[in-house]
Amino acid sequence: MDCGSQTGSIPDSPRSSHLAIDIGGSLIKLVYCSRGSGESAADENCCSSTESAKISNGINFHSLRGGRLHFQTFETSKVADCIEFIRSKKTDFGGGWHLEGSKEKNVIKATGGGAYKFADLFKEQLDIVLDKQDEMDCLVAGANFLLKAVHHEAFTYRDGVKDFVQINDKDLFPYLLVNIGSGVSMIKVDGIGKFERVSGTSVGGGTFLGLGKLLTQCKSFDELLELSHKGNNRVVDMLVGDIYGGNDYNKIGLASTNIASSFGKAISEDKELHEYQPEDISRSLLRMISNNIGQISYLNALRYGLKRIFFGGFFICGHAYTMDTISVAVHYWSKGEAEALFLRHEGFLGALGALMSYNIDKSSLLQGQIS
Amino acid sequence: MDCGSQTGSIPDSPRSSHLAIDIGGSLIKLVYCSRGSGESAADENCCSSTESAKISNGINFHSLRGGRLHFQTFETSKVADCIEFIRSKKTDFGGGWHLEGSKEKNVIKATGGGAYKFADLFKEQLDIVLDKQDEMDCLVAGANFLLKAVHHEAFTYRDGVKDFVQINDKDLFPYLLVNIGSGVSMIKVDGIGKFERVSGTSVGGGTFLGLGKLLTQCKSFDELLELSHKGNNRVVDMLVGDIYGGNDYNKIGLASTNIASSFGKAISEDKELHEYQPEDISRSLLRMISNNIGQISYLNALRYGLKRIFFGGFFICGHAYTMDTISVAVHYWSKGEAEALFLRHEGFLGALGALMSYNIDKSSLLQGQIS
Repeated sequence: MDCGSQTGSIPDSPRSSHLAIDIGGSLIKLVYCSRGSGESAADENCCSSTESAKISNGINFHSLRGGRLHFQTFETSKVADCIEFIRSKKTDFGGGWHLEGSKEKNVIKATGGGAYKFADLFKEQLDIVLDKQDEMDCLVAGANFLLKAVHHEAFTYRDGVKDFVQINDKDLFPYLLVNIGSGVSMIKVDGIGKFERVSGTSVGGGTFLGLGKLLTQCKSFDELLELSHKGNNRVVDMLVGDIYGGNDYNKIGLASTNIASSFGKAISEDKELHEYQPEDISRSLLRMISNNIGQISYLNALRYGLKRIFFGGFFICGHAYTMDTISVAVHYWSKGEAEALFLRHEGFLGALGALMSYNIDKSSLLQGQIS
Repeated sequence: MDCGSQTGSIPDSPRSSHLAIDIGGSLIKLVYCSRGSGESAADENCCSSTESAKISNGINFHSLRGGRLHFQTFETSKVADCIEFIRSKKTDFGGGWHLEGSKEKNVIKATGGGAYKFADLFKEQLDIVLDKQDEMDCLVAGANFLLKAVHHEAFTYRDGVKDFVQINDKDLFPYLLVNIGSGVSMIKVDGIGKFERVSGTSVGGGTFLGLGKLLTQCKSFDELLELSHKGNNRVVDMLVGDIYGGNDYNKIGLASTNIASSFGKAISEDKELHEYQPEDISRSLLRMISNNIGQISYLNALRYGLKRIFFGGFFICGHAYTMDTISVAVHYWSKGEAEALFLRHEGFLGALGALMSYNIDKSSLLQGQIS
């Protein structure tokens, strides 16, 4: 999963100051602050402004007050590329990163399972110690930072329309945070640093890409998502109308167009896999997984009386159909009582949270005193 | 989906008296009462005893007080076979079925979407009118009948051990009924005829067979289930330990062997579909779907304060791994608070419910006055 941001170099070769990394099952997410070439940092608080832009090679970056916040991803299977990238940044910065309060020079904050899995590799290859940060702590810290400090971070999405929502600080908690990476974590967030992972599902982004790769010739998440645009899930899904002879099942509120069984049409037809269009398969898969996540999320929100569900993680990738399906699922199951919200920096919650764990001036970030 | 009971004829060519049919998206389930050859019916209440046996050709049947209750399935795509079967029974019975209180001779009780979809076909081919019964009404009536009238109907299943549970009449309601056919319906049952369909999911038996057919060379549900016995889901699923370098993620209670992402291992490996063992794929698929149903069922049971969840529908098919996965899921998510129960006549709830809707003496059936 990469949303097109894996390759390409940061154009202005900034001198890095803080770098944090979130190594998940599929993707490595990396965030680093730089003072920028020709810019001088006003203070250590390098992550203090958020005017975002998408540059031509697909990397999101942000102008900072006195610096820049950079976002980068690599496939976890290509961890060597990530190591090379960090090596280049290390040279830029002059040889290492400081961990405040520690004598050690080459230490970076790291979260996700890969902080454990690849600790030895980073030490061997880069002489860098990964300072492990709890994954849930980081997801929540990243989400809280974004929701409190960043203007136009959260939005609703229905029928192709994105509506930005600015949430009053005092009205933010509690909420449900659903992070959709390879797998899915659902976290009830009650305040800064106050949270509980209440649920999750193994049917997530890894399932979409894993099954998608097996069922189509796609090699990447982007390619699979792109295919889904053009597909028609009704070719593979069994609809209520397929069972009811074109009729609705009104008594229980099921329209003939509702999906009764995902991939259910593949049961009765004597078609081989290659006779299906990969577009249709991709769309059915995306819908099945997005709808399922929306449903389980809603049931957990209901359980704890949470009205807002924020969806993050790289699976969403700003993709219209994914967001629409999740929104419709939450709306359908909650009968309009709960609301799905999305985050502009969805994929980088964990990495941002790890970045927050440096001894930078978080108070200004978290109190929304940012230009 | 057939669990091996599609073919074969009833050995003693009984003369049918009542026949009811449940035509789902994948399977037609047919139940009929016969007086049996050489047996005389004591009364019209032909469905009054339940000593079951499995005969050599895979058909379950039941000795009855004065008759027999027969169960038969056909693939919905082979509705013509079902029509032929009914034609043969019609002849046995002497030309038709009576619908009490109606002047029409050739009427049978029918439920499921196919009662609508195939109504014209039955009229044309057999001169039979399908008297449509609501699907949810029938599922609930069938389940209530079985749970109240049939000894050793419900059981728990853990670690290969089946424990029959006899539930006190007064302690039966409320419960959650989860019927897993092509799709899944979840029904809160509060009493005889008192219920609400509260949830469902499109990820059901049709998804297992549909995706299974696309991913393996399997042609049937039985074949796919058989394969799953021998498979190892860890070959395709991404485990917590795969992400965490073999470690547990103790803080949130995830063991290294927990599945983080179903089919997630297929992301990073450059393996083509044909390089995977179909056994492993089938097992991963079965586990993903069973676990997902278990989780959503539990969340709905929790929502309504229901301690018992009864799982029915042909997907389960008495299959050890399916039941074990569902049981573990309910136990895991509920922290032992809720219990998964299974039904011996799991696949025939709807058809039995339709049979109940004949004007037979239900009171004796439903008050447990059955030998």
